[in-house]
Amino acid sequence: MAEVLAALRSLMAAHSPHLDALIVPSEDYHQSEFVSERDKRRAFVSGFTGSQGLALITKVEARLWTDGRYFLQAEQQLSDQWKLMRIGEDPAVDVWMADNLPRGAAVGVDPWCVSVATAEKWEHAFAKKQQKLVQTTTNLVDKVWKNRPAAKINPVIVHPLEFAGRSVAEKLKNLRGQLANGSAHGIIITALDEVAWLYNIRGSDVPYCPVVHAYAIVTSNSALLYVDKKKVSSQVKSSLEEIGVEVRDYGAVSSDVVLLASNRLGTLSALKKFHEVLKDGGIVSGETDINRKPTSEEEEKKGELIWVDPGSCCYALYSILDIDKVLLQQSPLALAKALKNPVELEGLKNAHIRDGAAVVQFLAWLDKQMKESYGAPGYFAEVVGANKTKHQETIKLTEVTVSDKLEGFRASKEHFRGLSFPTISSVGPNAAIIHYLPQAETCAELDLDSIYLFDSGAQYLDGTTDITRTVHFGKPSAHEKACYTAVLKGHIALGNAGFPNGTIGQTLDILARIPLWKDGLDYRHGTGHGVGSYLYVHEGPQVISFRPRTPNVPLQASMTITDEPGYYEDGNFGIRLENVLIVKEAGTKFNFGNKGYLSFEHITWAPYQSKLIELSLLTPEEIEWLNSYHAKCRDILAPFMNENEMAWLKKATEPVSAYGGGTWVFPRMWPCIIL
Amino acid sequence: MAEVLAALRSLMAAHSPHLDALIVPSEDYHQSEFVSERDKRRAFVSGFTGSQGLALITKVEARLWTDGRYFLQAEQQLSDQWKLMRIGEDPAVDVWMADNLPRGAAVGVDPWCVSVATAEKWEHAFAKKQQKLVQTTTNLVDKVWKNRPAAKINPVIVHPLEFAGRSVAEKLKNLRGQLANGSAHGIIITALDEVAWLYNIRGSDVPYCPVVHAYAIVTSNSALLYVDKKKVSSQVKSSLEEIGVEVRDYGAVSSDVVLLASNRLGTLSALKKFHEVLKDGGIVSGETDINRKPTSEEEEKKGELIWVDPGSCCYALYSILDIDKVLLQQSPLALAKALKNPVELEGLKNAHIRDGAAVVQFLAWLDKQMKESYGAPGYFAEVVGANKTKHQETIKLTEVTVSDKLEGFRASKEHFRGLSFPTISSVGPNAAIIHYLPQAETCAELDLDSIYLFDSGAQYLDGTTDITRTVHFGKPSAHEKACYTAVLKGHIALGNAGFPNGTIGQTLDILARIPLWKDGLDYRHGTGHGVGSYLYVHEGPQVISFRPRTPNVPLQASMTITDEPGYYEDGNFGIRLENVLIVKEAGTKFNFGNKGYLSFEHITWAPYQSKLIELSLLTPEEIEWLNSYHAKCRDILAPFMNENEMAWLKKATEPVSAYGGGTWVFPRMWPCIIL
Repeated sequence: MAEVLAALRSLMAAHSPHLDALIVPSEDYHQSEFVSERDKRRAFVSGFTGSQGLALITKVEARLWTDGRYFLQAEQQLSDQWKLMRIGEDPAVDVWMADNLPRGAAVGVDPWCVSVATAEKWEHAFAKKQQKLVQTTTNLVDKVWKNRPAAKINPVIVHPLEFAGRSVAEKLKNLRGQLANGSAHGIIITALDEVAWLYNIRGSDVPYCPVVHAYAIVTSNSALLYVDKKKVSSQVKSSLEEIGVEVRDYGAVSSDVVLLASNRLGTLSALKKFHEVLKDGGIVSGETDINRKPTSEEEEKKGELIWVDPGSCCYALYSILDIDKVLLQQSPLALAKALKNPVELEGLKNAHIRDGAAVVQFLAWLDKQMKESYGAPGYFAEVVGANKTKHQETIKLTEVTVSDKLEGFRASKEHFRGLSFPTISSVGPNAAIIHYLPQAETCAELDLDSIYLFDSGAQYLDGTTDITRTVHFGKPSAHEKACYTAVLKGHIALGNAGFPNGTIGQTLDILARIPLWKDGLDYRHGTGHGVGSYLYVHEGPQVISFRPRTPNVPLQASMTITDEPGYYEDGNFGIRLENVLIVKEAGTKFNFGNKGYLSFEHITWAPYQSKLIELSLLTPEEIEWLNSYHAKCRDILAPFMNENEMAWLKKATEPVSAYGGGTWVFPRMWPCIIL
Repeated sequence: MAEVLAALRSLMAAHSPHLDALIVPSEDYHQSEFVSERDKRRAFVSGFTGSQGLALITKVEARLWTDGRYFLQAEQQLSDQWKLMRIGEDPAVDVWMADNLPRGAAVGVDPWCVSVATAEKWEHAFAKKQQKLVQTTTNLVDKVWKNRPAAKINPVIVHPLEFAGRSVAEKLKNLRGQLANGSAHGIIITALDEVAWLYNIRGSDVPYCPVVHAYAIVTSNSALLYVDKKKVSSQVKSSLEEIGVEVRDYGAVSSDVVLLASNRLGTLSALKKFHEVLKDGGIVSGETDINRKPTSEEEEKKGELIWVDPGSCCYALYSILDIDKVLLQQSPLALAKALKNPVELEGLKNAHIRDGAAVVQFLAWLDKQMKESYGAPGYFAEVVGANKTKHQETIKLTEVTVSDKLEGFRASKEHFRGLSFPTISSVGPNAAIIHYLPQAETCAELDLDSIYLFDSGAQYLDGTTDITRTVHFGKPSAHEKACYTAVLKGHIALGNAGFPNGTIGQTLDILARIPLWKDGLDYRHGTGHGVGSYLYVHEGPQVISFRPRTPNVPLQASMTITDEPGYYEDGNFGIRLENVLIVKEAGTKFNFGNKGYLSFEHITWAPYQSKLIELSLLTPEEIEWLNSYHAKCRDILAPFMNENEMAWLKKATEPVSAYGGGTWVFPRMWPCIIL
């Protein structure tokens, strides 16, 4: 690690202009959350492997910024040469740089790895001390990364209409309508999931994400896909061309953006395509719009601007454009993709049923193993374990082996295509590391005295899933039960909320926290994110978080959103409960203000562990919801269960009851004799 | 009304430059919420008397913007020549002007009646079409207002330390520290309550608000009060001078701001004062800082800026300053005033006890009247009334006569100084007019089939109060009970919330709405405002509202805040419940993140009407809270009650019970036989 820093500092000194600091972001050329191995530059230079972080290397020091999910992990992984900067506690990176780097400092960054919004924020902070952001012409990390993994050639696959639910032609038509409304003549699309969604293609260039490393440019008369052509079979190429999508080299995007900027791209591309079609003696299909003349309305509206999403577009491509001719606004595809069509909604529901079945099968299996091999009281019995050392090494249950087993249950299900993110499988104190990633060599063994938390999901052709459950196979402490119950209360309160159209996720966030706050507890992460349709497991623009977002997109019917409050006690345990919800019309009795009211529908099916619930803390309404949810789990998952699994599921979903909490008032007129 | 518009349009045409439109805001020269009669210019031109609104007069039309509280009232009061613009539904005034006034239009406004922030927002909107905001040199409305009330000469009164709790010297010292931290050498204070708070003075220039029409300027070595000198007795003048406060003419503020801008004000004033003191053969007291040399630290920090609060300072004074030398930021006095000192907290609690006693005495009296004179079943019986016509005209109970009675009960209490705002006393459909103001001639009579809502408060020397209760003296409908219960559930949920330091009111707002949203109900106003200490009944900077505020000041221990959700059904009824809360340290068992956790303490004492509560909708926790609050009401108010009143209060605060709602689950192990 020391050599890497030394080598980078040499390159920084030799760079023209000489660099006082180098920023190494987590993101790839598409501002992706998950990146391919060869794009993990920040992890390579710092040693910190969490999904979110930013490394800053100055002449004399190295600092790494990451958020609350990763404080513990970063502390463990960073060497002495690195200082951890806690987002939310320490100064933000832009503030820190402006305050601590010398006046006039040159700060280098690969402009392909940073978004327009981020680069502009940094430049704004730099202005005070005449510091400047320098776009390096090559990536300096790549230069010092000797064993950098090679790029893989993974095929581009057409995502069929039976799962996509909406044709490319229809998506392009809507997009072009939005471009016209925004006075834009073209849009640069750099987010990988937006490219995949728009063109109904999928791939496997990024682990856990069925996307292709690609860009897209769409104008009123062209639709271009920039991708390594070796990944595109002639069959796929033809089917794309049939619907008017032209495949171009990945590297051609820069020069095409130059053409786009001077309004020459559409024409050239369309003409070229037109000539090719004619040359082949073909006729231009009605579905393509190559030859279609714009309507007079379109002509009138045809804008001068180029639409660029400041949050996802890289600074490199933006820098090519004339700033006055840019519409810097969230991509219209972000919202279009988030509003699931009926086919996607149906697919998501089905995928979550199969996924829930896998989770229940896993829990039933794990319960049996824990009892048989570890002498654990098991999932149901709330007693102290009898024999902790009974198990043999051959059947050792570790965070990794059990999560592999869980993957196995999922892999047996229809349409399974892999996991949607690295499974967080965590025992005891590891569960307090919010995005813990167990390693086979070092991971912990399951333990009948400890909480076990697993947060996992899969990619199915018909939908992406994400679920978290927290369980205990021995006797949980009263404190663990109280915390689990507070998290569950927040989870139920959010899931049961009704709210008018126009409500943003930030407004709802508190509902999941109130039961925790009452005890002085909290969690350092947001409460919900969108989930893709065989795409990213984290999808915007909707989000439920206490942090303000720009733009702050309201929750709308047919969006997905997770409901995942938690509580984490460093060194002890962690708790999180997560379901995926769909936003729907609430159908309320009244409709004050004529706004329309929304509510949520749970589509995740797996029981909560009744043993971990302190029932006296639940309201009658919460108990009723729990029993009703459990009854549905039983019915919906039954078709997937064998006899033993069904017996387990029945027991896990038995109705619970309580005396109405500690506050139940005995009705005066109750004609009852207590014997 | 037509003549007023015609006269104004003549003045607009004759103005140089000629005005395409004239804005008439609600505010006086101090951006006050409540204004004196002679400052009600917007009401004069439009006829709409609500506390909030903005009139715009163009060559051909007249529009009035107001918020949801006033839609109904404005519809009733505006003549045909006016069009109501609903804030939140119709385009905002700046957007409307920019879109609808001609390119290059000149829009006039009296710059004393508009804040810096508002004027700048308008100018920003105007830029697109080269429209401009023109500062009229005189107020055009005053020119056409023939019978404008004359200015009253009300005395300035010193607010003694036993109520203020903090000396002027201490307040000035803190303020000067904040000026130094902000690199400011002076501050212009235009908000009337800030001037009153800083100098520990009170007055009666504005109805319901014990303030004086005055400005203040504070620099590192001077403290100036601009006020009509006829209002200041020689005794008050001396006591102000003793603590280093110099009294200057109200009209001198403009010329002094010119001096302040060139950094000559402090010196001149101090010298003048110094010479006067010497001339009188006096010695300069240690408490004044007239002669005190700034410490070296202060000298170093001494700023070049002048602090101006963009939200309260008028555009007229701001326009005198060099923009580059202005610190445009919320006045430090806003927060200082909101953080009540121990004496103020004690005073507020005591004032609210006396006020609650008056409210209970009023309710007991009203209950008796309604039964005796109107044949109503009364406050407690939930049955249909027997005889609606039994009462005689001589004892007619109207919205005005009963609110006068309520005022009488308050007036009998110690330290009473008047009401804190016009009492909202409203029967049936009038209760749906959120800020309804009954008029003796036209107001409604109480009715045993209708809800009665009263929102009222008083000014006591030791604190300002604000309370709303909603009652029914006959048989409320199931719908009215369901709505009352939803409002009560929100009121309880907000009041019972715990939350970490740093939480803004906007985050908490949803807690009061969730029970309403569940049924598709909502209310068109915020949920809470600060309450002053013998000052404004509406006080910032804290607020609980769904609307984002700038700056968004977090709730902090020792702030006051109201908790007042509602529900309003046009033409039928309105419901609101309001208590004043104090923010306090929560003393939670845990302290996750070391932020410290806060909660609320109710300081308002008056029962909720049990008859209006649908008990099956309350959780056991809510019932427990209600019974506990009622028990406290009984104990705390007992010393103020006579025998009959006490009997009434005991009955009104009897514990309630329920079967735990419709969801109560009969415990399986319950050893109980139902006979």
